[in-house]
Parts: sequence; C-alpha cells; structure tokens
Amino acid sequence: MQRVYNFAAGPAVMPEEALATAAREMLCYGDTGMSVMEMSHRSKAYQDIFDGTEALVRELMGVPQSYAVLFIQGGATGQFAGIPMNLMTGSGRADYVDSGVFAHGAMVEARKYGTANCVASSRDEGYVRIPTLEASKFDPNADYFYITTNNTIYGTKYPELPETGNVPLVADMSSNILSEPYDVGKFALIFAGAQKNIGPAGFALVIVRRDLIGRAMKITPNIFDYKVMDEAGSMLNTPPTYAVYMAGLCLKWLKGVGGVEGIAEVNRMKANLLYDYLDESALFKPVADRACRSIMNVTFRTGDEATDAEFIKGAAKAGLTNLKGHRSAGGMRASIYNAMPVEGVRALVEFMKNFEMGRK
Amino acid sequence: MQRVYNFAAGPAVMPEEALATAAREMLCYGDTGMSVMEMSHRSKAYQDIFDGTEALVRELMGVPQSYAVLFIQGGATGQFAGIPMNLMTGSGRADYVDSGVFAHGAMVEARKYGTANCVASSRDEGYVRIPTLEASKFDPNADYFYITTNNTIYGTKYPELPETGNVPLVADMSSNILSEPYDVGKFALIFAGAQKNIGPAGFALVIVRRDLIGRAMKITPNIFDYKVMDEAGSMLNTPPTYAVYMAGLCLKWLKGVGGVEGIAEVNRMKANLLYDYLDESALFKPVADRACRSIMNVTFRTGDEATDAEFIKGAAKAGLTNLKGHRSAGGMRASIYNAMPVEGVRALVEFMKNFEMGRK
Repeated sequence: MQRVYNFAAGPAVMPEEALATAAREMLCYGDTGMSVMEMSHRSKAYQDIFDGTEALVRELMGVPQSYAVLFIQGGATGQFAGIPMNLMTGSGRADYVDSGVFAHGAMVEARKYGTANCVASSRDEGYVRIPTLEASKFDPNADYFYITTNNTIYGTKYPELPETGNVPLVADMSSNILSEPYDVGKFALIFAGAQKNIGPAGFALVIVRRDLIGRAMKITPNIFDYKVMDEAGSMLNTPPTYAVYMAGLCLKWLKGVGGVEGIAEVNRMKANLLYDYLDESALFKPVADRACRSIMNVTFRTGDEATDAEFIKGAAKAGLTNLKGHRSAGGMRASIYNAMPVEGVRALVEFMKNFEMGRK
Repeated sequence: MQRVYNFAAGPAVMPEEALATAAREMLCYGDTGMSVMEMSHRSKAYQDIFDGTEALVRELMGVPQSYAVLFIQGGATGQFAGIPMNLMTGSGRADYVDSGVFAHGAMVEARKYGTANCVASSRDEGYVRIPTLEASKFDPNADYFYITTNNTIYGTKYPELPETGNVPLVADMSSNILSEPYDVGKFALIFAGAQKNIGPAGFALVIVRRDLIGRAMKITPNIFDYKVMDEAGSMLNTPPTYAVYMAGLCLKWLKGVGGVEGIAEVNRMKANLLYDYLDESALFKPVADRACRSIMNVTFRTGDEATDAEFIKGAAKAGLTNLKGHRSAGGMRASIYNAMPVEGVRALVEFMKNFEMGRK
C-alpha cells in the first residue's frame, strides 16, 4: 500500500523520515536494548531524549531563557482550563477574542474560574474572518488577553497581533506553531496541542514567561500547575514519553529542512498554489476572508453540497484524503502543515483543475 | 544490540510482539496509506482501533456494561485530582488509606477539593506493609473509600479488599491492573496509569460505575469530567491516539496468552521464583511484609548499600536492567509485569545465586 497525501486537520501528516526512524528504533533504541516506550522516564537515556526535544523547541522558535517550556498532558483543551487556573488570579478577569469554535470553547471553559469577557466575535459571520479589534474595549486590568492565532476549522489567521499594552498576551497556536516565525517575546504564554506541527497527539506544549508562574489557584490539579511542572522539568509524573520522543524526531526533521524560516517559505508557496487557483476557479470558492487567510488550513467549497461530496470522494480515490471540512463548517479543507510536501499540494491543485474541467 | 530484560517499574517492558507489529505498521496501517499517528481521531479506521482497545479492556477484565471505560490524559496523577473533583460532592469527605507515596500524594491532592481523612497509614514503618484497617474508623458518610491495590515502590499488595459497605470503593490499580482477576463489581471506580500493564505512558484508564457519573464540581476541567468524557466516548478532544493503539496491541497479546486468568498463573509462578529464593538466601532479604507481597514488584536488599550498588551494576552488565529501587526506598526492586517473560525472572534468580556464591 502506497502512502497517501493526508490533508487531515490533526492528527495529521508527519515527516516520513521521522516515522521511518521510529520504525527502525521501535524494538531497540541505540544501545539501550529496549524501545523508547519501555524506558523509565527517570533513566539517562530517556532524559537525553526529553531534553533534546525541549532544546529543539527553544532553538527553532527562539524561546528566551526567561520562558519555561513545558510538556503537559491533556492537549490544548486541557489548557483551556489550565490557563485561567494559573493566570486568572489577579483581577480575576480576562479578555477573549471569539474567532472560532475552539476560541469560544476556551472562553466558556475559563468562566468556570473567573470572568472571561468577549471583546470581539465573528461568530455571527460563521467565523470566516478574525473579528475587528477595538483597543478601547480592552480591559486594562485583565489578567491576560486571549487569542487563537490560527483557526483550524475556518482557515483564518491573525494578519497582525493585537497590541495589548501591559496585559499579557496568551495565544493558542495549536494549528500554526512552527509554521512561520513569531517573536515569542511578544507573548506571555504560547500553547499548542502537539498533533499538528509538533508530533503525535498526547500533550500540549506550553511556553510561558517565568514571571507569570507561581500564582495558580489552590484548586489547580498538580499536573496543570505551571510552577509544579516547571520545577519538576515537566516530570512531576510520568510524561507521555513516546509522544515527546516522536516530537523530537519531527523537530529534528524541521531543523534539517531549514527550520521555521525555511519551512515558512515553503508553507507560503504551498498556500499560494492553492489560493491562486481558488481565486481564479469558477467552481471552487475560497471561504476565509482574504485578509485573514491561513497558510496551514485552506477552506473552500463549490456552493453545492452534492458536488462537494463528489469531489471529496473522488479525491480520496486518487490518494488525496481527509479533505472534508469540519462537521461544523462543511465544504472542504486542505490542511497543509509543515510535513505536507509541495508535491501533495501540486497533486491536489491538479486534481481540482481536472475535476473542474470535467464538469464543463 | 540484543534486547535486555528490563525490570523498570514503569514505563516498563512491553510484549515484543506488540512492538514488532507497531514497527511493521508505522508507515502504513492496513490500507489507510498512513501511520496510526497520522490518522484523524474522527476517522473510521481510527475509531475502530479505539473501540477495539475498549472492547479488549471490557473483555479481559469482565467490565459490566453499567461501567464506563474512559481513556483520560494526565496519568494516574491527573486522577488524584480528577477523582475528588468528580466524586467528593456529597458529604465532601472521603476516606484514604495511606499505603505508600502515591496513596499519600493522592490524599494530599484530594484535600484541595474537600476533606480527605487518613483512616490508616503504614508511613511510619516505611510502608513495608498494607496498614491494618479498622472498620470502626471508616466514615459511613464518606463519598468514597480510596485504596491503592498494589504499591509499586514497596512491593506490597492488599491481601484482601476492605469491606466498605455502601461507601463506594475507589482503587488506584496502576501497578497491578490486569495481572490477576479482580471482580470489577466490587469497585465503584478503578483507575490506572497506562505505563505498566496496559501500554505506553500517556493516559489513565478509568473504569467507573455510571451511576456515579454526573456529579462533578463546577470547577472540574472538561477533560477530567467523567460525564463529559463518557458522552464524548473519551473523544471530547483529540485523545492520545497512538498510546491507545499500542495499548490495544498489548491487550491483544494478553488475550492470546490466556487473558488475565492465564497471565495470573504465570505471574504467581514468576513471583514465587523470586520470593522462594529470597526466603532462603543468606545475602538478599525481601523487604515487603510476607502477608502483603506483590506479585508485580519484588523488593529486596542486602542490608549493605555498597553491595546493593555492586549487584545492580553487575546485573545491568549481564542484561538485567533497572533493578535499582525507587529513590525513596533504596535497595533493589524487580518489576515483573505481565510482559516480563519467565526466562527473564529465571535469569535474574540465576544471576542472584551466582552473585551470592561469589561472595562466600
């Protein structure tokens, strides 16, 4: 069986090189005589793997030493609770931008722990754009200001970051972390579920400014408490050892292909291949507002559900899989994360062109 | 490099057959054209894997349909908070038996959410036995009664389960789940970190009676809320997809070698090989109280730290690794989980005999 081009939104395509290494090392890693899965997390061999993954995150993203890099189980959804538990402890209020279902979910979850104000929303427009932000509506005493840099379901991305002054900026970067350069110093906290551009599902990466650590609510579970986890080097308890190992292999691959700067060029090229065609196609229409286009998730539709379904089915037969849009959005979505080769995007555009021609 | 006999306490040895299958399927699972790691958790192919793992848990443990089987990130330590958040909502009190460092940690964590009473403790004796339980000290209005069936660090196991009447019995079974038959019906909730007898690290298995679901505190994070997770089939958010797949491969292996009944015989035989020798050795002394001996973790020492260190080093050179006791207990510990072959235990006993003879 040949490998397909997998356009899934996450879990998603991973570098074949990383998978091949994992297969080769499955029964025996180096001279340890065991699988990485079988290693004690307290062993030197495993600690080296773990430290190596953290070092790659720091190097590839340019994370200053004043930030902790944590690996926490529970995914991004876990952090929807973890963030207010750790940070909503000053005024007890935070500002949220409602730019999609996940941003909305984070805001609702935060209300278990304090006041989460919605400062802007594009919910009524089906989230096809990042809502316009008016600084006058921002709470100057908010404990943090929350955004979702890239909205996986709708294929939107913040064209520019909001200016929040002294209010710490918190970003869910699940679907575009490591896809293009961001200045970490502009954020108080960046987090991301691992299963798009980092590695397999199983943890959230949390990058947090150390001066914000240590003010968690008393009801915070230990495994979500940034201070406890930072002091334990993310090993308060057994971490998701294999997932962190796999993330290391993926990040090593990323470094090898030019790091974040290098992949950003490729990512923009891949996205342009699709958007350029969508802008001229008479059949397929791009969904996201032009000013807010994501380079990781490209959404489009024909306007006719039956044609969409026919396209998705035909594409799958041609080895272009998981193009169906999220159940809440419909249409099509091509997720073209770092590990999606240019050839995959070219094959998709080619298939779309032929599909369109075949209907004339 | 040859594979070693790995006596680590967890993450721990896994069935070689499961690892070999994982290696073979790494780049392409069945006719999907992708790795299990790359699969959308919403795809049919992955749902089948997930359902298959749950079905094996139910079959191997004889879990009644009146219980939910959940896969929750955060490990057993996550559940130290998850359990009180979900269950400590009646009287707001629970009884805890302090039989080891993890039991103690669970009790301390629970105090963030209510009153966790210590009904018995063997802390002052270095946890070498399960403390004697006096039913008269039990709180008849406790929301639950908490035990740790097997104490990994000390090598102790409850010789019999406490009678708690109408008070729901909650058990941390992290280090002896699936090692011998337990009547699930006697428990209100069983949970276990995956990384000993289930699969690789990355989740806790939670088996909970459905009538106890739906009474969580309002501050419970969604990913810890049993009702939310049960209704979502453990897929509120992306589950640790690969870890659950690996667990399925391990449980399939377990079924193939005779299930829990079959492996229990092998486990008792393996443990007896070690205990019989320890009981007659003039050099090595068993640590755990005879009445409370674990068949999963066998603790022993020579009484001399330098000799212990020499033994551990020599054993590692002979391919018998990770025999060092937990940092809080010292001495030696041989963890002989389901996947440890009898040959590994035989080789260990042989090495111990030779080591002892060499010192005469």
